[in-house]
Amino acid sequence: MRIIIVGGVAGGMSAATRLRRLDESAEITVIERSGNVSFANCGLPYHVGGVIEDRADLLLQTPQSLAARFGIDVRVRHEAIGIDPAARSLTVRELDTGRTVELFYDALLLSPGARPVRPPIPGIERALGLRNVEDTDAIVAAAGEASTAVVIGGGFIGVELAENLVRRGLAVTLVEGADQVLAPLDPEMAELVHERLRAHGVRLLLGRTVASIGPSQAVLDDGSTAPADLVVAAVGVRPDSQLAARAGCELGPQGGILVDDHFATSVPGIWAVGDAVQKTDAIDGSGAMVALAQTANLQGRSVADAIAGRPVTDRPVLGSFIVGVFGLQAAATGWNERRARAAGRKLRIIHTHPSDHAGYYPGAEQMHLKLVVDANTDAILGAQGVGASGVDKRLDVIATAMAGGLRAAALGRLELAYAPQFSSAKDPVNMLGFIDENQRDGLAETLQWHELDAAVAAGATVVDVRTPAEHAGAAIPGSLLIPLDELRDRLDELPDGELVVHCAVGLRGYLACRILAQHGRRARNLDGGMATWSRGSAASRASGQ
Amino acid sequence: MRIIIVGGVAGGMSAATRLRRLDESAEITVIERSGNVSFANCGLPYHVGGVIEDRADLLLQTPQSLAARFGIDVRVRHEAIGIDPAARSLTVRELDTGRTVELFYDALLLSPGARPVRPPIPGIERALGLRNVEDTDAIVAAAGEASTAVVIGGGFIGVELAENLVRRGLAVTLVEGADQVLAPLDPEMAELVHERLRAHGVRLLLGRTVASIGPSQAVLDDGSTAPADLVVAAVGVRPDSQLAARAGCELGPQGGILVDDHFATSVPGIWAVGDAVQKTDAIDGSGAMVALAQTANLQGRSVADAIAGRPVTDRPVLGSFIVGVFGLQAAATGWNERRARAAGRKLRIIHTHPSDHAGYYPGAEQMHLKLVVDANTDAILGAQGVGASGVDKRLDVIATAMAGGLRAAALGRLELAYAPQFSSAKDPVNMLGFIDENQRDGLAETLQWHELDAAVAAGATVVDVRTPAEHAGAAIPGSLLIPLDELRDRLDELPDGELVVHCAVGLRGYLACRILAQHGRRARNLDGGMATWSRGSAASRASGQ
Repeated sequence: MRIIIVGGVAGGMSAATRLRRLDESAEITVIERSGNVSFANCGLPYHVGGVIEDRADLLLQTPQSLAARFGIDVRVRHEAIGIDPAARSLTVRELDTGRTVELFYDALLLSPGARPVRPPIPGIERALGLRNVEDTDAIVAAAGEASTAVVIGGGFIGVELAENLVRRGLAVTLVEGADQVLAPLDPEMAELVHERLRAHGVRLLLGRTVASIGPSQAVLDDGSTAPADLVVAAVGVRPDSQLAARAGCELGPQGGILVDDHFATSVPGIWAVGDAVQKTDAIDGSGAMVALAQTANLQGRSVADAIAGRPVTDRPVLGSFIVGVFGLQAAATGWNERRARAAGRKLRIIHTHPSDHAGYYPGAEQMHLKLVVDANTDAILGAQGVGASGVDKRLDVIATAMAGGLRAAALGRLELAYAPQFSSAKDPVNMLGFIDENQRDGLAETLQWHELDAAVAAGATVVDVRTPAEHAGAAIPGSLLIPLDELRDRLDELPDGELVVHCAVGLRGYLACRILAQHGRRARNLDGGMATWSRGSAASRASGQ
Repeated sequence: MRIIIVGGVAGGMSAATRLRRLDESAEITVIERSGNVSFANCGLPYHVGGVIEDRADLLLQTPQSLAARFGIDVRVRHEAIGIDPAARSLTVRELDTGRTVELFYDALLLSPGARPVRPPIPGIERALGLRNVEDTDAIVAAAGEASTAVVIGGGFIGVELAENLVRRGLAVTLVEGADQVLAPLDPEMAELVHERLRAHGVRLLLGRTVASIGPSQAVLDDGSTAPADLVVAAVGVRPDSQLAARAGCELGPQGGILVDDHFATSVPGIWAVGDAVQKTDAIDGSGAMVALAQTANLQGRSVADAIAGRPVTDRPVLGSFIVGVFGLQAAATGWNERRARAAGRKLRIIHTHPSDHAGYYPGAEQMHLKLVVDANTDAILGAQGVGASGVDKRLDVIATAMAGGLRAAALGRLELAYAPQFSSAKDPVNMLGFIDENQRDGLAETLQWHELDAAVAAGATVVDVRTPAEHAGAAIPGSLLIPLDELRDRLDELPDGELVVHCAVGLRGYLACRILAQHGRRARNLDGGMATWSRGSAASRASGQ
C-alpha cells in the first residue's frame, strides 16, 4: 500500500508513525514544505524568548531518524502542488531545485495545517509571521537588532510572542482589534490577562488596528503610532486547504476541509486531518474550526487506523486550551458565556476565586474560575480559568467530566486527591458543583456582573456584606454596608424592594442570601463578588459599553 | 429543631455550617473533645516541620467566629460520653471541670473521626501520636529537645512526619512492618517513594517492627536498635465508634459505624459521617474504611441535607489520595493491582514514565503512572502516580473519568488542555488510553515485571532494544541486545521460541513488538521497561521474595 502524507508536523507525523506500527509493508512518504518535520510548533514562541535555548530542541525528529526507526520516506522542502484524484497521483515540487515529480498513492492524507492570515495593510511585507522553524529563525534574527516591537493580534501566538519578546528585552506593543485578547475567554476573564500583560510592561492597545507599517513604527487606525523595529503579525490562521479544494474536496464555510467521521474527504482516496479540517463541536454538533495541536495529534493517530481499515470515529471538539501569560495560566474548554447566550440557552453562570491549595499551606495562589451551565439540563457547557497555578488541573478535570457526561452538580461529588499543598478538602471543582447545585435547587439566586446596572436601575438595593475596611477600600457606588456577622441584627435597616448582596468573591454574599431568604427577603448574590464585578466593569469601560 | 453534632472538624463542621445555611432557626450545638474545632488536620505534620510556621494558621475557625457568623454553639473540651436514644439525649462531660450535662436533640450527628492505633509495645507510653492541635504541640515541643526520632508506621501521617522531622534537623528512622510504605500503592510504585525517603536521609526499615521502646532508643524485632529521643506512633487509625456502639449503632467488621445511603445509623435519630463510618467501595460496592478529609467534608455537607429532609445519597469512595514526600507527589485512586488480582479480575496493567510536560520545554520532570484496567470490560479499576510534578492533575483526571464511567481506552480521546509548559500534545493520560486500546485490540501484548522470571524459566528470550550504551549501563541478566533501529535487519539473530522485548520505559519495546508481530514472531513487551522492572525487582529483593 502506497500512502502519501502532505504535512509532516502534528497530524501528519502522528499518522505516519501509527501507520508504520500498523503496517510494516506500507510505503509511507511524507511531503513537507518547510525544512523540518515533527518540529515543536507550540514551542516556537519560547525559542524566540530564549526559554528553549537550543534551537535543536525544537526538532523532535529528523528525516534520518524517521527513516531509521520507521522506514518512512520524509521529503522536506517539497511542496505538494497538485492532485489528480482519478490517477491517484500527487505532483510535488522540490523547492531547492524547482523540479517536479509525480507520486502515486493508494491513500493520500492531507495534514497541511493552517497558515497565518496576512492583514492587507500597507507595509505588511515587513511583518513576520510564526508558523515554522524558519519563521522562528527570522524573528530571532530580527529581534536581535530590535529594541521595539509591535505584535498584531492578541490570540495565543500573539500573547505568547509578546511575552517572549519582552523576555528578550524589547518594548512591546500588542495591538488587538477586538476589545480583549484571547477571544475564547469572556471579557471579565480576559481582563485578568490584560492586567498581567500590562503589569509586565506590554503596551496593550485593544479595539485598535494597525493602519500601516512604516520603517520603524506602526501607525494605528486612530493615527497614533507605536515604535516597531520589529513587526509580527499573528492575527489568526486560515486552513491551508487550497490544494484540497483544487482536487475537488468540499470545504466548509470557513474554508476547512470537510471530512466524515473517518476523516475521509469528499474525494475518494483522500483523507485529511489537523488544523486544515473542519471539526465537530462537542456541545451542539455544529462545524468548528479549532486549530490546536492536541486535536491534530489525536486525529493523526486516528486517521492511520481509518486508512488501515480499522474501526475509528472522530471525536468532537471542546476546544480545550491553555496558554501561559507571564506566569499566569489562562485556560478554557467548551463554550464561553457569549457563545452560550448567542445559542439562546438558559444559563447558570458561576464565577469563583478559590486558592489553588489550602490557604493555610504556604504559597497558595488565588485562581479565577468560571463555569457555564445549561440551566435546563444542568449540562456543563464550558469552563474558563485564569490563575498562577492549578488552573490546568481544574480545567482538565472539567473537560473530563464533560467527556463523561457528568452534570454540573456532579462536580461537587468528584473524589479528587487532597493534601493541603495540592488542593483543598473541597477542591475548587467541587465548589463549582456545590454552587451549581445550590442554584439548581433554588437555595441561591445570583446576578451577573453585567446585570447589576439594570437591577439597580430597576430599584434594587446593593448590600455590601464585607467589613467596613473592605468597603472603605473599594465599593460599588451606592452600596449599603452591613457586614455579614451583623446582618441578623440589622435586618430592619434594609429598605423594601429587591436586594442585591455582594462580598469580595461570593461566599459571604451567599451566606447573607441564605439568611435573608429565610427572613422572607428576595436577595440575589452578585456572582463572583467584587473580584468578578471589578474585572467586568473594567472590561466594559475599556470597550466603551 | 435541636441538632447536636459530636466532633467539630471536617465532617462535623461541614454539616454544622450547611445546616445553618439550610435552617436559620435550628439550634445547632457542636461537641468537641479537643481544644479546637475546624482545625487543619491535614496541615498538622507541616506545622511540625515549620512549613506552616504560625500555629494560628491551623485554626481555621474558632468557637467565637462560628457563633458570630453561623449562630452555632460550639463547645470545645467537651466529651460526649453517653447517648440515650430513647430519650434522645446526650451526656456530655466538660473536661476542664469534670461536670456532666445532658443535652436533648432531635437529630444527633456523630462525626468523631478515627483515633490512632497504639501498638501494644513495652514503652509505648513514651510514643506520641498525631490527631489534633494539642498532639502537634506535644510533638513540636519534644522535637525541640530531640536530635533523633523513630516514626513507627509508613502510612500517610508516618511519611509526612518523617519528612517534617527531617526538615527540623532530626535524624529519622521510619519503621514499617510491611515491605513497603503507603499500602495503597503497589510495591514497584512504593519503591519510588522509598528511593526518595532514603535520598533525603531517612533510615527506612521495612518489614521490621518495634519490639520495645527504651528511654533513648527503639529496639526492633531483630534485636537491632534505632536512636529515638522522640518516638511517634502512626501505625494507622481505628474508627472512633465506641460511643455509637454503646448507643446501639451497628458497626461493620472493621469497627466502622454502619450508615445507610442517607447517613442514618441503625438507631433512629442518629446520623454519622466521616472517618468513623464505613463507606461503600466505588468499584464493587463492598464496605470500605477510608479515612480521608475530602470524603469527610463531602459527607458532612450531604448529611446536613439528609437531616434537613432534603434528598441526598452518599457517594461511593475511590479512596483518591495524594501525599507529598520530599517534593515527590504520590497519589492513587481506586484499586491497586494487588486488590484487583485478589478480586480475581482479569487485568490489563499499564506502567508509563512520561514527562509532566513537553520534553523540549525546560524543567520537564519524569513521572511514573500505573493504570489498572478490567480486561473484560475495559473499566478503569484504579490508577497510581509518583513524580515531582503533574501527578495530581493526571490522577484527578482519571478519578473524574472513573466517576463519569469512561472506559480506559476513552482516556486516549480526552481533550486536555495543552501548551508545552503544562503538558504534552499527547498528555500522559491520553497515552494510557492509547496503550490500553492497543492491548485491547490485540496490537500489543505485555508482560509485567513480576512475570518476567517465570517467562524466562519457561524458555523465553529477553531482547533489549535499547542502545549499546544503555545496555552497558544496566541490563536484565541474559538479555540479548538488538537496538530497535537495527531490528528489521537482524531478525535472523533471534532464537526460536517466545520473546520478551524491553527498552527503558516501554515505548521502543512496543515498536519492536509491532515489527516482530508482523514478521510472525510472538513477542511480549515488558510493561514499563527497565524503569518499572528495576523498581519491582528492588521491591522484591527487599521483601525477600
